[in-house]
Amino acid sequence: MVPPGVLKRVQDLLGPRGCLHRPEDLSLYEYDGGVDKHAPDIVAFPRSTEDVAALVRLAREFDVPFVGRGAGTGLSGGVIPREGGLMIAFARMNRILELDLENERAVVQPGVVNLDITLAVDASGYFYAPDPSSQRACTIGGNVAENAGGPHTLAYGVTTNHVLGLELVLPDGTITETGAKECDLPGYDLTGLFTGSEGTMVLVTKVIVRLVRKPELVKTCLAIYESSEHAGNTVTEITALAITPVAVEMLDGVMLRMVEEATHAGYPMDAQAVLLIELEGIREAVEEQVEHVRDACMVCGAREFRVARSAEERDLLWKGRKNAFGAVGRVSPTYYVQDGVVPRTQIAPTLRYIGEVAARRGVTISNIFHAGDGNMHPIILFNPRKPGDMEKARAAGEEILEWCIAVGGSITGEHGVGMEKMDLMPKQFSAETLDTMRALKLLFDPNDRLNPGKVLPTGRGCVEIRQAPLTSGAPVY
Amino acid sequence: MVPPGVLKRVQDLLGPRGCLHRPEDLSLYEYDGGVDKHAPDIVAFPRSTEDVAALVRLAREFDVPFVGRGAGTGLSGGVIPREGGLMIAFARMNRILELDLENERAVVQPGVVNLDITLAVDASGYFYAPDPSSQRACTIGGNVAENAGGPHTLAYGVTTNHVLGLELVLPDGTITETGAKECDLPGYDLTGLFTGSEGTMVLVTKVIVRLVRKPELVKTCLAIYESSEHAGNTVTEITALAITPVAVEMLDGVMLRMVEEATHAGYPMDAQAVLLIELEGIREAVEEQVEHVRDACMVCGAREFRVARSAEERDLLWKGRKNAFGAVGRVSPTYYVQDGVVPRTQIAPTLRYIGEVAARRGVTISNIFHAGDGNMHPIILFNPRKPGDMEKARAAGEEILEWCIAVGGSITGEHGVGMEKMDLMPKQFSAETLDTMRALKLLFDPNDRLNPGKVLPTGRGCVEIRQAPLTSGAPVY
Repeated sequence: MVPPGVLKRVQDLLGPRGCLHRPEDLSLYEYDGGVDKHAPDIVAFPRSTEDVAALVRLAREFDVPFVGRGAGTGLSGGVIPREGGLMIAFARMNRILELDLENERAVVQPGVVNLDITLAVDASGYFYAPDPSSQRACTIGGNVAENAGGPHTLAYGVTTNHVLGLELVLPDGTITETGAKECDLPGYDLTGLFTGSEGTMVLVTKVIVRLVRKPELVKTCLAIYESSEHAGNTVTEITALAITPVAVEMLDGVMLRMVEEATHAGYPMDAQAVLLIELEGIREAVEEQVEHVRDACMVCGAREFRVARSAEERDLLWKGRKNAFGAVGRVSPTYYVQDGVVPRTQIAPTLRYIGEVAARRGVTISNIFHAGDGNMHPIILFNPRKPGDMEKARAAGEEILEWCIAVGGSITGEHGVGMEKMDLMPKQFSAETLDTMRALKLLFDPNDRLNPGKVLPTGRGCVEIRQAPLTSGAPVY
Repeated sequence: MVPPGVLKRVQDLLGPRGCLHRPEDLSLYEYDGGVDKHAPDIVAFPRSTEDVAALVRLAREFDVPFVGRGAGTGLSGGVIPREGGLMIAFARMNRILELDLENERAVVQPGVVNLDITLAVDASGYFYAPDPSSQRACTIGGNVAENAGGPHTLAYGVTTNHVLGLELVLPDGTITETGAKECDLPGYDLTGLFTGSEGTMVLVTKVIVRLVRKPELVKTCLAIYESSEHAGNTVTEITALAITPVAVEMLDGVMLRMVEEATHAGYPMDAQAVLLIELEGIREAVEEQVEHVRDACMVCGAREFRVARSAEERDLLWKGRKNAFGAVGRVSPTYYVQDGVVPRTQIAPTLRYIGEVAARRGVTISNIFHAGDGNMHPIILFNPRKPGDMEKARAAGEEILEWCIAVGGSITGEHGVGMEKMDLMPKQFSAETLDTMRALKLLFDPNDRLNPGKVLPTGRGCVEIRQAPLTSGAPVY
């Protein structure tokens, strides 16, 4: 609970409509796209950087924990206020401040929706490259916090490769800035340090992003397989050809049936796996690459290879991919999305292992993932009302992540550590590396007020404050 | 001066041939490629990470300043031991530890020469992308410290985009590691923070780098102009065509005559500027792009456009570019290389301004630079034996950098701040941003023993310890 004076002070600062505090309102802010939840005590809606700095100073004055929030679409509990306190929601800081096409930059507030940047520059022939599946809802501030990826990061890189500068508020209330429209400024790379720090070091109030020219031609292909192992092998084969598609997405049989029933994207109902492969660039190059990719797919055992003939067909295939999580929601009360990375050469063995885990634990696991990056997203279906189901899902997820580490991969590709994977960090990193990370966190936030209990396994985080797992309640999206 | 016991302890650790301490030996370690100099008291040559950690603990025990050193090819004084002390030279930690072609990674010691990585994987069809002009001599450890660039960073990015993990020794002697062969590991981006920290935070003892597939076809073109402004405009024109060459290098008339006399690369002796443009990718794409680039050059006023017809012709053109600094050495006793960045659209006005500065200050300034990045390298020729010449050169350099900041650029593109540009940092960054950087430095090195007096303007750095400029003596390379 926050001390009684805090609400009044927030209302004085932002006006009566500038914050929420009634339990029925707060309940909308107690979850993200993951499986944990906890409500804040107050949700504040700043309209300016100065508002944010004033809220941070207030949190400091009253020793109240605080956390920034975008759209709440995160998948690792990064935004959950696990100790309650003040949530600083950026919904009203949602303006595109500048479009500088000559220098291929945009300057935006953190509450701008990812896709809205692309829509703003689309007619000029540009786009913003990182495209998480939640891009119609998620905000740039959240993307920066989580260093968000997406299907097209195979060719374009993740958020940190597209963020050139930040304005931010430090946990002591200082407003400062890092980077600029120019790349690779002198001095220490603060922009890179804060990007992906999962909202635990600073609050971002302005972002300078790179805009990318649209390619001359895009070709989207669908390869259909009787075996997910064959699909996995194709990914290695395409890499060996020295072709880098902009996206290589894989859906297994369970997933593509769920997706097809929900979206009618044209995916085959009877196959064991499909690869969604996208190539782009100048016309001649793309047309030649499509033929090389077709050959690679057929050599690896695809039963069919289709190329979308129009923008509509292409959009339909992507609609199926990007709405996959909604499709799962139609057939399972809830689900748990994992996010592990393996070397590309380990995709086929990892799919086999996931199948074994599913059989052994008695859960259904469906796979949809960024195959080109080796970034696996096993989706574990479960029913939270059925006793023990949640625990089985979590245990299956952890087993899969431990496999990922063992084959030389990592416990998260793009969803972040949040509160979900803190306990796995010592399996990924040495004590010395974690100590160095902890020292950085405490340098900026010595009292651990900003988004406490995230990313780093602390005694405090693990033992005293760790939430009991969600064992019942409404489906979590 | 270091306390008397230190030398004995270093000799005990590394053997009598493991260090240098006589003034005539130390004098070889008192400079880099910049204009400042100061000798160390001892140069130590560790053979292992444990050696490095032991040396760091020794420096700590005796409160001696210490600095890491690669090949000494840096251009901003980053390696100069401005307070003397212990220099840790990585010349004997020069092994390639692992070539993992399946995952497109190499693991190397910091003393490995940049080009040697490419030579080791060339036959397998790979290369290491960042290619500073000093790539035949400079080491990966130094590249990591300075976040080195090169002509091909236009398409491939700088060192930080190619370094995935580090083993390192902290200033307290702790050995730790960051990152891995996989990209984008969870937690804070320590690898990114230390890359480009100019040897002021940690000593790097192992580096995991990305290997890149060689392209199917490379075409190197030379566009010849009567006006450097026309060459500058061509860069904007090519960008507007949505073509990204892998390199766009510009040499002005003064420079290309010096280069041609030294290397006989085939550059025209009578032109005012040339652009060296390289395109690569799959055959059909490159061949089409060459024609588009040819049209852009001719539309912008090129008098001639040549395409290298063989690997030999291509190598000769690049030899001219990469040996440019040697060519300058033939005609001027010494010179001062500047390194400022401007938005691409500001290249032509910046060249005009540089011409004005040269005329006003009475110095010769020659231009050779990464035009595609807007990364200018005005080379200011001067004679250190002529009283006042050095001061004129420095003043001209600072004026040019202030122009770069004023038009929205930066004071260094790839050479680092070092001790050369510390005083310009407050013109680039706010006091809050510099304070944040300083806090990071002191977090890792609270006693400021590791490479003191670099990057950040401190009272101590600027006032008490600042070296008098070099006013006489041998040419500095």
